[in-house]
Amino acid sequence: MKTASLKDIDFAKGDGLVPVIAQEASSGKILMMAYADRRALSITLKTRYAHYYSRSRKKLWKKGEESGHLQRVKRVLVDCDGDTLLYVVDQTGPACHTGNKTCFFRQYKKH
Amino acid sequence: MKTASLKDIDFAKGDGLVPVIAQEASSGKILMMAYADRRALSITLKTRYAHYYSRSRKKLWKKGEESGHLQRVKRVLVDCDGDTLLYVVDQTGPACHTGNKTCFFRQYKKH
Repeated sequence: MKTASLKDIDFAKGDGLVPVIAQEASSGKILMMAYADRRALSITLKTRYAHYYSRSRKKLWKKGEESGHLQRVKRVLVDCDGDTLLYVVDQTGPACHTGNKTCFFRQYKKH
Repeated sequence: MKTASLKDIDFAKGDGLVPVIAQEASSGKILMMAYADRRALSITLKTRYAHYYSRSRKKLWKKGEESGHLQRVKRVLVDCDGDTLLYVVDQTGPACHTGNKTCFFRQYKKH
């Protein structure tokens, strides 16, 4: 697999934030989508625990800091144009605040 | 699985756009991340081929319209707060314009 480094990540396009997909390493399930700024990514890489930037609370957010539902980050992937990241994680407990394993627990259906 | 409909999708938060993750149905691989507006989603649901909104070209974009690398959409999932979608697809050919199977072909490495 090719590698990418900080200079390959385009934080400018999203005003300092990049979308981050979290995928469970063992199952391949997509757990959630959130955002990271440069600092959240840097702390994630240093600690190996997933950190994001909370847009609603406007601050650094360690996933599971309150719930204990931490994400241990096994690797970070960078997409072709450097504007999206993928955290491949070991998830403790459910990823979703609703108690569901993943945030994608609803299927679209025309009513 | 629970269901969601158009009213559950929050297009306002992203100025009319929601991020869309495309995942391959057979392998669980995350193929790409792009954006959809209400129209792209509607045409996707009608035709069952993935449509997005191209932010750079500022227009509706049928994935594979030029390359032939179409995405047949098996289902659309909606996340807990309705601001991210997941297209579960059958991918024809590579999903990435670089010729890679997925856009996430680079691993982050500190240089």
